[in-house]
Parts: sequence; structure tokens; C-alpha cells
Amino acid sequence: MIVKKQLFELDRLELFRRGTLKQVRVGYETYGRLSPAKDNAILICHHFSGTSHAAGRYGPTDQVPGYWDGIIGPGRPFDTDRYFIVSADTLCNLNVKDPNVVTTGPASINPETGTPYGMSFPLVTIRDIITVQHALVRSLGIKRLHAVAGPSMGGFQALEWAVAYPEMVERAIVVVSAGELHPWLIVMPGRIAEMAIRLDPHWRNGDYYGKAEPLEGLALAFTALTMIARSQPWADRTLGRSPADPERNPLDALEHRFLIETEIEKVARERAARTDANSYLYLARTNALYGAGMGLDTYEEALGRIRAKILVIPCSSDLFFPPYQSHKLLIALREAGVSASAFALESDGGHLAGVLEIQKAAKVLREFLESP
Amino acid sequence: MIVKKQLFELDRLELFRRGTLKQVRVGYETYGRLSPAKDNAILICHHFSGTSHAAGRYGPTDQVPGYWDGIIGPGRPFDTDRYFIVSADTLCNLNVKDPNVVTTGPASINPETGTPYGMSFPLVTIRDIITVQHALVRSLGIKRLHAVAGPSMGGFQALEWAVAYPEMVERAIVVVSAGELHPWLIVMPGRIAEMAIRLDPHWRNGDYYGKAEPLEGLALAFTALTMIARSQPWADRTLGRSPADPERNPLDALEHRFLIETEIEKVARERAARTDANSYLYLARTNALYGAGMGLDTYEEALGRIRAKILVIPCSSDLFFPPYQSHKLLIALREAGVSASAFALESDGGHLAGVLEIQKAAKVLREFLESP
Repeated sequence: MIVKKQLFELDRLELFRRGTLKQVRVGYETYGRLSPAKDNAILICHHFSGTSHAAGRYGPTDQVPGYWDGIIGPGRPFDTDRYFIVSADTLCNLNVKDPNVVTTGPASINPETGTPYGMSFPLVTIRDIITVQHALVRSLGIKRLHAVAGPSMGGFQALEWAVAYPEMVERAIVVVSAGELHPWLIVMPGRIAEMAIRLDPHWRNGDYYGKAEPLEGLALAFTALTMIARSQPWADRTLGRSPADPERNPLDALEHRFLIETEIEKVARERAARTDANSYLYLARTNALYGAGMGLDTYEEALGRIRAKILVIPCSSDLFFPPYQSHKLLIALREAGVSASAFALESDGGHLAGVLEIQKAAKVLREFLESP
Repeated sequence: MIVKKQLFELDRLELFRRGTLKQVRVGYETYGRLSPAKDNAILICHHFSGTSHAAGRYGPTDQVPGYWDGIIGPGRPFDTDRYFIVSADTLCNLNVKDPNVVTTGPASINPETGTPYGMSFPLVTIRDIITVQHALVRSLGIKRLHAVAGPSMGGFQALEWAVAYPEMVERAIVVVSAGELHPWLIVMPGRIAEMAIRLDPHWRNGDYYGKAEPLEGLALAFTALTMIARSQPWADRTLGRSPADPERNPLDALEHRFLIETEIEKVARERAARTDANSYLYLARTNALYGAGMGLDTYEEALGRIRAKILVIPCSSDLFFPPYQSHKLLIALREAGVSASAFALESDGGHLAGVLEIQKAAKVLREFLESP
């Protein structure tokens, strides 16, 4: 499946809390064909460090497909022979240096000043992200969504769609996610990342565009993020306590490293190189702020508005969204009268299993999408 | 119980891996009285950020007693009417600015240069820490220990005592600890803390003595440490998702904080102010290196040397030493022919329950200490 990035533009976005954003631009991809009745659309929402590239490849030599390619495509649960699938980059997307990402965030040019917003960008919420998606979906002539689905921050968006546009959403699939960001995560990795970026002398209060960027601070942030996204048993089983170099025993010098340090740091630095530090700070706060209903209602009132059927898919070893938290959402949904079910990914892969091992839920996803 | 710090000095310490330390000094405390037969001694070993102040108060106006005061004292499980209890500061103790701590580490004066060691200090291991304790205990005329016990890094020491001096140790109590540092912890908080300290411009490759110290880097390190020492359910139950200031909603500005951020950061900054950054780096590596037997033997060979009875006390919500890891130690001990039992602290308090809720194990501790 060869896919290409498309561009959606919005002249004005009234923000949920206050303020207006002008000239909003986000990238999006579509897979499959919209039916003449426009009743087969599914929206896929991406995770914190992800992009709209949910499935397919950009060209025949592209090595790595989109993150949920295992479940999106012809004959797969998100069957592109049946459904028309839309996936959009969020506001404040981290990967501003990826040529396939289009987003509006702190690294964007403020049309009123002609320079990057930096820290003058307004805070945005999950609700604002889906307001843009809503405008995109409506611009395609779609009035109802067969489903909205996503992992992690994508699960927040799926749930918030069901709360904010109850008449439009038939099914919502909340993968390795919950009804709010866990307070533990507000500090770790949230506050940790912010402290690290602010500590990096290249950050300069967010005014680093065109200069050296705070890559060391970001590398620390992604080291924490990557580690919390993996479970302790996964760390045991894969990298363990081996030295990075058998001839440089960590017993002999502080500079000698364990393999788990060098491997995680390599991943962290690769991710840092694609990321805008200010966008990290903004999108982390967007997540920290998330509680269903966004503080305008009680949690119960917000869930009570939902008319969609909800499928919750936690992972047994998830440290980001511990299963007990997904279970709490399930109970709250049912108490609010919502039709909600759950299927647990059994894995020691931690939070990342919501992306890397999502095929384990293939049968359940297929049945849920085909259910009346 | 009023206690006072005493000083133990050792002219030379041959290090486990290589090198010699001269003029080693550590502080210690004792509670209770050594019997004429010198057969009632118990050694208590402290955790990573702790000190030898395990019980009692330094004076009648001292507000906070030692960390295990709830189980050490007259009539308590570690009954000072029966036992003579010794507790020593480790090498590289973090709290060099605490007037009640005496340690030898990177912040100490190198007798050969007259200036602080800084990063020229040799790496030390848990084995080196107990070698000093062994010399201290022998200097008091003690040939056998009724028990060795400690939480977390103190549990490493208790276990390593049983491995290294099998003929001296009758009982070892390993609280919220295991047979090795989990690889997940090598990165988080280990590597995270090191990245943060190195990122702080005040660190200056460890040559900051007499100048501004890398307190921002340390504050980040302790934020991570404090959060991992607490469980997610604890975070939910106590600080939750409330704003730090109800009039400064985190929805409105990035500078507005959640209560959990400000409370954890307050604790982190208090701990940072007492801590030497280089000592943090060194003692973190000391922990990262710990695997029973210290790499000279296989894990099984090391455990096979033990003649002591072992009591393992995990906490059900511990993220530092997940209960499955304590269970692994228990199984390995039994397979090595060691008499080992376990008692789990049921708590959502996380790793810190090994200090703050240790009274829950009072009955089991008393029975274990009184057992033949």
C-alpha cells in the first residue's frame, strides 16, 4: 500500500480554553476509498511521539511501514477494502523535522510576526486536536465515523471524540490508554523532560530556532520516555545487565557502560534529532491536561454523553497506563450507561505493545468493527 | 533513645576490583549493649539516599527519628534490650553536607593531593562497603552477627554479607531489594540522573568543590528517584491531578503547575541540597554493578555459599524492586539450598514502604530474629 501525505488547512481555530490560532495546517493520510454514502470512514489518531503515518509506505523502497500497518490494509481488521481510513498529524506534533509531517505548533511561523511562535504559542488541548480533525473530516463530506481509534494519546483522542461529538462516533477504540493522564506521568516523564530541556543551555527560553537546539535535554527526555514505554520484565529479557562492550567492564570506570544504557540512549538520540523541544513541552502539557471532558464537566458527566460503543485495550505490563487505570475507565463507562468492553494484550512488552503487538488484538478489533 | 555518631577509621582499604583507598573514615551509630559473649550483634545497612541514622534521636528536641525507628528500640523487633545494633555510613554516602554523616567518597580530601578526589575517586562496590563494615564489626570484637538487615541498597549489603562472610552471618533480612540491580533501574533513574548532572553547567566534570554545585541536575535526579520510589496508585490517592494553585490552572499557562509537580520537586530540591553530585554518580554505579557475588562467581555459586537463613520482604507495589524480582531471589536461594522465606508488605506505598511501613512486618521480623 503506497500512501501519500495530504495537507489540510484551516484559516481560524478557536481554541478550547481561550485564544485563536490562524492558518492552521496539518498533514493527513487516507487509506481505502470513501463509499458513495460516505458511511465507511474510520479515523486513526496517533500517539505522543507519532505521526499520521499509520499504515502503508511512501514508496516501493520505503523500509518501514506506518506504525499500525499490521492491522490496517486489505483484509486486515481495519480493512481498506471496506473502510476509508483517515489519519492526521496533531497540533504540536513533535516530528517537525520529518518531511512527511505537517503540523502547527511552537516551531511554526506566527503569521502575525513572521517568526516562529516559540513559547508564545498558546497551550492546546486534546479537544483542540480533535476540533481540527473534525473540520478535516467534515471537509471530506463525512458526517458519521464508523470508528475512531488510537494508541496512548491516540486513545485520549478516540475517547474525546466520543465525548465531544457523540452523534458522529459509532465506535471508539482506546488502546493502551485511559480516561485521563495518570498523575504519576505528569512528573515522570512530564516534569523530568521539562527540567531536562530547561537545563540544556541551548534551550534559551525556547528561542533557539536557527541556532543549536537543546538535543541533550531532549535525549534525556526520550531516555525516560523510552524506558517507561517498556516494562521491567522486557528489560530483563532483552538487554539485561550485559556490558555495552565486553572489554570495557562497567566495574572498571564510570565511562564504561551497560548495554541497556547505550541501546536506549541510541534510540533516544535518534528520536531527539527528529523532535522540536518546544513542541515536546507543549504536547506533554496537552497530555497532562487530559481528563475526559477537559474539566468543563465532571468525568462522569463527560462519559455520560457518549453514544458510541467503546473497546478498551490495555496491555498487562504497561507502566504508562497501568491496566488498573484502563479498568477504572471501563467501570466508569459502564456506570455511565455506555456499552463498553475490554481486551487485554498479554505481553511483557509494556506500553509499546499497543503499537508493536497490536496484531494480538486483531480478532477482537475485527469483530468490534463488524459488530452492529 | 538518644544516640550519637561515632567514627571508624581504617588506614588502608584494598578495593574489591583494584586500587587502594587510604584514610577511610565512616560514621556509625550503635543501639543497645554488646553482651559479654559478644553474640548479640546485629548490623543494619542503609539505603541509597540514607545514612547510618537508623533509629533514635540526636537530642531531646530532634524532630525526626532514624528511618527504621519503628522497628528498632526497647521492646521492638530489633529489641535494644536484647541486641546490640550497629549501623554505619557507607562509602560514597550522598549526604556529605549532613553534619551527622561521615563518609569517604569523591567529596573527601585525597590525602595524596590535599584536594577533593572528585572524579579521580575509584569506583567502589557493595563488597567494598561491607569490607569496611566488617573491619568496624571486628574492631568491636564481634565475630558473628546475629543478623544483617537493610532496605533497598541495604538489602544488597545484607545479602552480600551472607555471601562474602558466610561463617559470620546467622540471619540476613533483605527488605524491598533483590539479588541484583534490575537493568531497568540502570537507565531509570541511573542513567537519567547521570545525564542530568552532566548537563548541569555547574558540574564542570566533577570539579565544582568550593564553587556553585550542580543542584538543578541533582533536583532532576531526585525527582526521578522520588517518583520511582512511589507507586502509581499512591500518586493517584495522595496528590492526584490537582493544580498546585487553584487560581493558576495548568490549562492556562505552561508555568502553572500541578500539585504533584511542585510537591515532588520540593522534596527533590531538599534532598539535592544535602547531596554531593559526584557521590550520587558513584553510588549509583555501585548499585548498578550489584549482582550477588559481584561477577566473580555465577549468581548460583554466590548464593550457594550462604549459610545464613534469609528473610526476603518485598512490597507489592514496588517499582524499584518489582515483587517478581524478589520472588526470583527467593527461588534462587532455595535452589541453592539456602533456608529462605518471604513476607510481602501489602501496600500501595511503593518502594518507600520498605522504610515508612516496615512496622507491617514487625511480627515476622521478631519471629525471624528469635528463631533458632
